[in-house]
Amino acid sequence: MKVPKQQELTKDRKPVAQGGGSTPRVGVIGLGYWGPNLVRNFNAVIGENLRACCDRDPTRAAAIARAYPGLKITGDFDAILADDSIDAVAIATPVETHHPLAKAALLAGKSVLVEKPLTASVEQAEELVELAERRGKVLMVDHTFVFSPAVRKMKEIVDSGQLGDILFIDSVRINLGLFQHDVNVVWDLAPHDLSIIDYLLGRLPLSLSAFGAAHAGNGIESIAYLNLDFGGGLIAHFHVNWLSPVKIRHTIVGGTAKSLIYNDLDAVEKIKVYDSGITVRHEDVEDRRRYLIDYRAGDVWSPHIPTQEPLRSMAAHFVECVATGRPPITDGRAGLRVVRILEAAQRSIKAQGGRVTP
Amino acid sequence: MKVPKQQELTKDRKPVAQGGGSTPRVGVIGLGYWGPNLVRNFNAVIGENLRACCDRDPTRAAAIARAYPGLKITGDFDAILADDSIDAVAIATPVETHHPLAKAALLAGKSVLVEKPLTASVEQAEELVELAERRGKVLMVDHTFVFSPAVRKMKEIVDSGQLGDILFIDSVRINLGLFQHDVNVVWDLAPHDLSIIDYLLGRLPLSLSAFGAAHAGNGIESIAYLNLDFGGGLIAHFHVNWLSPVKIRHTIVGGTAKSLIYNDLDAVEKIKVYDSGITVRHEDVEDRRRYLIDYRAGDVWSPHIPTQEPLRSMAAHFVECVATGRPPITDGRAGLRVVRILEAAQRSIKAQGGRVTP
Amino acid sequence: MKVPKQQELTKDRKPVAQGGGSTPRVGVIGLGYWGPNLVRNFNAVIGENLRACCDRDPTRAAAIARAYPGLKITGDFDAILADDSIDAVAIATPVETHHPLAKAALLAGKSVLVEKPLTASVEQAEELVELAERRGKVLMVDHTFVFSPAVRKMKEIVDSGQLGDILFIDSVRINLGLFQHDVNVVWDLAPHDLSIIDYLLGRLPLSLSAFGAAHAGNGIESIAYLNLDFGGGLIAHFHVNWLSPVKIRHTIVGGTAKSLIYNDLDAVEKIKVYDSGITVRHEDVEDRRRYLIDYRAGDVWSPHIPTQEPLRSMAAHFVECVATGRPPITDGRAGLRVVRILEAAQRSIKAQGGRVTP
Amino acid sequence: MKVPKQQELTKDRKPVAQGGGSTPRVGVIGLGYWGPNLVRNFNAVIGENLRACCDRDPTRAAAIARAYPGLKITGDFDAILADDSIDAVAIATPVETHHPLAKAALLAGKSVLVEKPLTASVEQAEELVELAERRGKVLMVDHTFVFSPAVRKMKEIVDSGQLGDILFIDSVRINLGLFQHDVNVVWDLAPHDLSIIDYLLGRLPLSLSAFGAAHAGNGIESIAYLNLDFGGGLIAHFHVNWLSPVKIRHTIVGGTAKSLIYNDLDAVEKIKVYDSGITVRHEDVEDRRRYLIDYRAGDVWSPHIPTQEPLRSMAAHFVECVATGRPPITDGRAGLRVVRILEAAQRSIKAQGGRVTP
Repeated sequence: MKVPKQQELTKDRKPVAQGGGSTPRVGVIGLGYWGPNLVRNFNAVIGENLRACCDRDPTRAAAIARAYPGLKITGDFDAILADDSIDAVAIATPVETHHPLAKAALLAGKSVLVEKPLTASVEQAEELVELAERRGKVLMVDHTFVFSPAVRKMKEIVDSGQLGDILFIDSVRINLGLFQHDVNVVWDLAPHDLSIIDYLLGRLPLSLSAFGAAHAGNGIESIAYLNLDFGGGLIAHFHVNWLSPVKIRHTIVGGTAKSLIYNDLDAVEKIKVYDSGITVRHEDVEDRRRYLIDYRAGDVWSPHIPTQEPLRSMAAHFVECVATGRPPITDGRAGLRVVRILEAAQRSIKAQGGRVTP
Repeated sequence: MKVPKQQELTKDRKPVAQGGGSTPRVGVIGLGYWGPNLVRNFNAVIGENLRACCDRDPTRAAAIARAYPGLKITGDFDAILADDSIDAVAIATPVETHHPLAKAALLAGKSVLVEKPLTASVEQAEELVELAERRGKVLMVDHTFVFSPAVRKMKEIVDSGQLGDILFIDSVRINLGLFQHDVNVVWDLAPHDLSIIDYLLGRLPLSLSAFGAAHAGNGIESIAYLNLDFGGGLIAHFHVNWLSPVKIRHTIVGGTAKSLIYNDLDAVEKIKVYDSGITVRHEDVEDRRRYLIDYRAGDVWSPHIPTQEPLRSMAAHFVECVATGRPPITDGRAGLRVVRILEAAQRSIKAQGGRVTP
Repeated sequence: MKVPKQQELTKDRKPVAQGGGSTPRVGVIGLGYWGPNLVRNFNAVIGENLRACCDRDPTRAAAIARAYPGLKITGDFDAILADDSIDAVAIATPVETHHPLAKAALLAGKSVLVEKPLTASVEQAEELVELAERRGKVLMVDHTFVFSPAVRKMKEIVDSGQLGDILFIDSVRINLGLFQHDVNVVWDLAPHDLSIIDYLLGRLPLSLSAFGAAHAGNGIESIAYLNLDFGGGLIAHFHVNWLSPVKIRHTIVGGTAKSLIYNDLDAVEKIKVYDSGITVRHEDVEDRRRYLIDYRAGDVWSPHIPTQEPLRSMAAHFVECVATGRPPITDGRAGLRVVRILEAAQRSIKAQGGRVTP
Repeated sequence: MKVPKQQELTKDRKPVAQGGGSTPRVGVIGLGYWGPNLVRNFNAVIGENLRACCDRDPTRAAAIARAYPGLKITGDFDAILADDSIDAVAIATPVETHHPLAKAALLAGKSVLVEKPLTASVEQAEELVELAERRGKVLMVDHTFVFSPAVRKMKEIVDSGQLGDILFIDSVRINLGLFQHDVNVVWDLAPHDLSIIDYLLGRLPLSLSAFGAAHAGNGIESIAYLNLDFGGGLIAHFHVNWLSPVKIRHTIVGGTAKSLIYNDLDAVEKIKVYDSGITVRHEDVEDRRRYLIDYRAGDVWSPHIPTQEPLRSMAAHFVECVATGRPPITDGRAGLRVVRILEAAQRSIKAQGGRVTP
């Protein structure tokens, strides 16, 4: 199997932003849970072009300073914005700060990478997308799973057409989870699956309904189910859950010709393609329409999935997009689509599962 | 582990019908897919008190005649009804005929066992329940899974209170299925899970919504999701699917103290109890209500599940209930509750997932 | 995938025995644990040409008589031998009786099918093989697994050469077992695996050693390990065990190009082919021989295995061989090879694992 | 469940060496594959008392120097020996250098930790053990698995007696492996399992035989099977393999009362205890000794295994033993027993599986 190379991700994508051409210089904003991972990967990808890090917490800053002796560390975000030697910033702060920080960075002429989800509301995401396009800057969201070898392989298989028409997608992402005080299980876990499905389909569902329950006495949902209707018979369903005694990461993509299962917890056979399905034949028998359905069980094929750190590929892709001006595969519009679904799911849950349009 | 004995199923249940005391004589109606299994099991349980079988199709009747030389076989249902030596009938015909056949049998003074689902509509089920009670006859529905050792063990664990409060039930029953021309996947597969949940909880949900998609061009749903709200934070979710490339039979019962998983495809560890969960503590910190949530991962325990044919236990239970007049654990009211949910789910699917009351 | 048809099993095999041409008439000897399965399958394959059954135990005979009303049942083996209308007998009696019964049947001019293992000693097996060849009669051993679709598929893959050279075969067949009073775990379980390996390789190992332990105080081994050396770097290893708390049926066939795993307990993916392995390159570097070894991890492919009862195919194959005179794929010589290994393993165990020649 | 604390490992063990009392100062010798892991863990356990590192390769030394700015790095082993401020050294160099380096360190008055296997020969190991005892210094071997929470739990269960008498141990450690140019698969993989079994049983087998095959054309075994006879009906069997297409880490400990399975690849249920087994009853029936064997299948229990880095515990244990003078649980004698088995296995393989005494 051929590992998709970085350039393949952007080929056939025309530049939409000003590319500096040379390796861009990057600053990382936020050194909490995820920021150090970004630092490590940008350090691996661009070395000393990782110029600066920023966090208000001196303890976090000091930890990074020890590990990366040459790296400039600051607690002052404005100093990063004012530094003309920095072309782009990667924002790994709490979701409610994504919009003000990303907006300020775009206004200061920087390209921007934002952790998922892009923003806390559709309105915020729309403003960022519009601003980035107007200013000719790259706006990318870190939908990390899109850069994992397994999901890329899944995309390759779906795009090849071998599954036939896709009939349904069923995704389960459950475990005994880290309860969040601020966001519910939908905003915490669903962005992973929604970003994967967005990568596969590249479009919004026509409508959706969602259903959830809060169990910690704080009104924050710890279990939720989302039903997305993409029209034409294609539905997608998501189960996200912080209360499951077992961990499951399992996605079925059911097609008319073949079906695919993505099990992220299977160390070896993460992707399996099942050559089984149904064939529907229509017949008119004695003036009565009949449907004859044949079943077919066939071989199972599990393509080799190379080992590759998704975050490394993600960082390299951002760097390349900033350098060339080409649009990222997880651009602001992809981030916006995911936020649209999250916001709509939230509305539906509060409306007891009523159907809404994202 | 002690295997639940037949009498335990009815202990503490007062007679509601006229019990004949002695072993009842039974006739089986319908010798298609399921009927021969009933014949085999009633033959094992009551021997020659299995008196007669009935099917209009002479080929089917002949096959049974060969295998059970002494058994009376007829194509005439009325002859069964008129035979005073027959105390009870077991009906294994297509669902749309359940109501007329069961009604006729009850009116003829027979006790009645009906295959699941009890009837094709709530109205029909209500009429049968009312009629059986008025006539003092046993009306039982063959919710076979309720008689499986694994489900009984699950019931025993839930009733023991060791799970704490039940927070959610999540059930998946999917496979590359046998498309039916007449019923959709909800009526085909969900009765199994709904009867299990009814056995565990013994009550109807307050409301439900359902979501499905038809793929064979015939308007008959081949995938469906049901969300049941039982109030008090307890939700149940069902995924039934005829298009899955893999077979999954998996139910999670999540509790505040422990959780349980029932995997019917695991030959050895069908039931696992996970001593893990969350503990919510409420604190007032600086006038601001905070929720502190502790995680606990603990031992896993899988009780031994004896091997026992559920249908054998079901047949024995019916026979015992007819003999003693005690109400079956899967009585007409249990059958009615399941039909209520099926019918409501159908309404919700047609209303695009709108919330309905069963 | 194409299901191997019966005739494929014998194509290119020249007749070695007198074939009657028409459907042979068969008698089944022994109605204990396995005999009724033979009756059921011969009945399905040849119907009324299954002529007679024989067992000295009247209870067993009566049970068969009830189930197969037209079948002649006798307690007298000699009556079967004397019946000229019977062309062939299938012997399903305790192993120590295989030799005298099969010998008598061959002498009486019958073709013979014998349950595995063929006999209790090499000497007995040699006599039967020689006698069958001299008399021109079919002698077949019921190595049932050889007729299972999974093992046939395994054979097809091995014969295709896609695995490259076979380097090792590792087989595990363990469970909490039925202790036998007369035979040890080697004679009970190993014939299954040895017959499979004999089918794949078609030859005896050059030498073997075996190692076992008896635990029930009766000197009968309940655990054993067999090491077979086929020469040329090909080794095979077998673990058979009656004391394992879990059931495992797992065979690895490791090749230079690809490897194959046969997991008989996997309902769906019984056979998996792994496109992974090593490549050895020899280089002379600075007058020093070096071995450069490359690793390759690749796709996994699991061919669809049709559902088919192995015993049905086995019965059909015996019938066909008797009719045509062609040699069975599990002929007396295959049975003899398996008995040679069993007997040698027994010697090695008693000699504390000393290396012996089968 | 209570996590075993460090002090529990040495309680009831009387000092055998001179303990310095205060935190010992440690140097790490060898910065190749494993050395950096030791550096990281000693750094975590004793901070600045990790005084120095040594490797002749300047590249490796430089990498560690960057990561641990304050740490003294040298290419000169003798400088470490001459440094009186260093109390103990941890040796992570190729196995053939273990003996000379450890011997020199002991002679220089240092306590010594050596990577597994302790030495390349029994003679070397015996000399080190004798020397350490004579000099009153701690000699410990890094049998890392002994310090894993799963193996400690296994030891706790075995010691509790709940398994009854142990009848057999069957261990499989196979994968597509890293071929070594110098050591075969026995010396590479078996030390892990042998050190676990030594921890459980604490004694040598009476005899053993081994069987292997070399496949890379270099005479170095890539597959091997070891049979150990501990007497009294207790046998242990090991399968180590570099050519397996799948990775398996699976150990069964079969007992008369219960059995245990340790599956190191199961993320959640690494240890399972099966309440199943056999009961042998002896009876004299008609002057004939009969053995009645009852089977019992029962519950399965999987104790929670805490997450804890084994190497961290190992480093802490070494430090504690040096400080207190108490003998390590993986002392030189444990290391010697493992080397005895490795050397004997090698002899047996070369003698075609002949039985040898370790």
